[in-house]
Amino acid sequence: MTTATEILQPVELDLEALLLDLRSLIGAGHPILQAAAEHLFSAGGKRLRPGIVLLISRALTSEKELPLKHRKLAQITEMIHTASLVHDDVVDEADTRRGVETVHSRFDPRIAVLAGDFLFAQASWHLANLENLEVVKLLSRVIMDLAEGEIKQGLNRFDSSQSFESYLEKSYCKTASLIANSSKAIGVLSNVDQESLNSLYFFGRQLGLAFQVVDDILDFTGNDEQLGKPAASDLQSGYLTAPVFYALEENPSLSELINGKFSQKDDLDQALSLVRDSSAIKKSRELAEQFASESKDSISWLPDSPSKKALLELPEFVISRLY
Amino acid sequence: MTTATEILQPVELDLEALLLDLRSLIGAGHPILQAAAEHLFSAGGKRLRPGIVLLISRALTSEKELPLKHRKLAQITEMIHTASLVHDDVVDEADTRRGVETVHSRFDPRIAVLAGDFLFAQASWHLANLENLEVVKLLSRVIMDLAEGEIKQGLNRFDSSQSFESYLEKSYCKTASLIANSSKAIGVLSNVDQESLNSLYFFGRQLGLAFQVVDDILDFTGNDEQLGKPAASDLQSGYLTAPVFYALEENPSLSELINGKFSQKDDLDQALSLVRDSSAIKKSRELAEQFASESKDSISWLPDSPSKKALLELPEFVISRLY
Repeated sequence: MTTATEILQPVELDLEALLLDLRSLIGAGHPILQAAAEHLFSAGGKRLRPGIVLLISRALTSEKELPLKHRKLAQITEMIHTASLVHDDVVDEADTRRGVETVHSRFDPRIAVLAGDFLFAQASWHLANLENLEVVKLLSRVIMDLAEGEIKQGLNRFDSSQSFESYLEKSYCKTASLIANSSKAIGVLSNVDQESLNSLYFFGRQLGLAFQVVDDILDFTGNDEQLGKPAASDLQSGYLTAPVFYALEENPSLSELINGKFSQKDDLDQALSLVRDSSAIKKSRELAEQFASESKDSISWLPDSPSKKALLELPEFVISRLY
Repeated sequence: MTTATEILQPVELDLEALLLDLRSLIGAGHPILQAAAEHLFSAGGKRLRPGIVLLISRALTSEKELPLKHRKLAQITEMIHTASLVHDDVVDEADTRRGVETVHSRFDPRIAVLAGDFLFAQASWHLANLENLEVVKLLSRVIMDLAEGEIKQGLNRFDSSQSFESYLEKSYCKTASLIANSSKAIGVLSNVDQESLNSLYFFGRQLGLAFQVVDDILDFTGNDEQLGKPAASDLQSGYLTAPVFYALEENPSLSELINGKFSQKDDLDQALSLVRDSSAIKKSRELAEQFASESKDSISWLPDSPSKKALLELPEFVISRLY
């Protein structure tokens, strides 16, 4: 199986330089933030988001050295992503992420709030200094989507009456918006035409949705070690995802268990069996594969290059995590 | 004594409309945020920051209806201010502000993180849609200053070796930057020349510093009821402010009490007496008065109007809180 590191090979050096920059930027003069930054930017994380931005930038130019603004945009993407993770972990009271302690659990929720605010602030400052109003709009929309996604998620716990559509909206806000809008933004900085911008946006959107649905499937099919967090933690926390919606169609009785917040001893196990024994996982896989395939098809117009090849492999990689 | 409400009279209707807008914007569709917004935008608060923006806008035009972008900028100013307060209260673990329970204490720290993020996100989205890159830069600089100020404050607790300059820098970041940059930004939107922009910035900067020094004096001279929080809470929390620096010059022994974090029974009372019995309060007053006077002088060029008169009264109002 191709790994993320292998796929990101055409931008490996760009990504290394970017992470080095990020750590010195954030750590400068603030010992506590330095520690949080080391913790955040050394352990784990495939850096897919800045990787995608850099790959698109490389796919659109034959220059050896990428323009500074392109590299900055990739960095901003990672800052926004990391800031939102740090605050999400506070809101969700998560102790681990990808098997690593979260900032608020390793340090303190107050440090996590500060670190996230500092990252958001740095992102918005660097964003303004890209000197491109359209890019500012795209990325500030992402910041708003991330906040709305977190609120939507928090408000709809243990509520089986919510629609599949609201789940997709939440997934767009929390995962796809950043990839879609940063893919489009690097197109803006590369001066491509409107049709190409739309297809870059669609590429990122469908890739992000595929990524989210795969994550949601793995929560039911993976074990604690593979996930870096307890398995089935989404359902246990009351977050309804694609497999649950499909299972609800086949077994309406599942809704009582959910609305009851799994208050009886075996409720959660029963609910998990209802999901796992239905065709929900299969249907969710088909949905993820559809998103991945749409993502791949939308960038066929890019000129051939190692970076284009890598971008085409990304949707496949996302799906390969299921097998 | 003139009240803030009296000074803001020329923009009273603008401010009312602005608050109504803010509450509906933030509450729309999110019951928890609605509650937090009601809590934040109904109780207390003199709305000085958007008031200053609106007064400058009115002082620069004779139009009856202010342009939409000017009103939006005032709203963004209040959003950023409120967002930073909500997160600061989480970081500082404050239970009350202006005598009212804080969001994280009334609701939950997680709701406070969400509400602050949502406000920051809304601010950056509306900011981008002002379609003015210079204004985006000025306000994103504010967001960065606010985060840096909070970090500076958090890192320098109980450290008597820090400089008076670092205190002023922290005060600039936490209080003056927003007023200075939003005053300049409304000048940018009003198309005034560079010299006028600089003087608007200076007006806001010195007003903000005066405001902060007065606040810091009141922490030593006010009682719990006047302050809406426990008196002398700054020193108790290890935050060193203007009066403490002046007192340290007269009584170097104060530093031992501070560095020892007031660990002995009477240490804090002793430290408070050292500050109150020195000429520290008098010197701090003179500093605040100097800032206020510089603020006032810098906008003499504005054409005469009720709004200009109000702007000139603001520095006096800030100082009048001391008497």
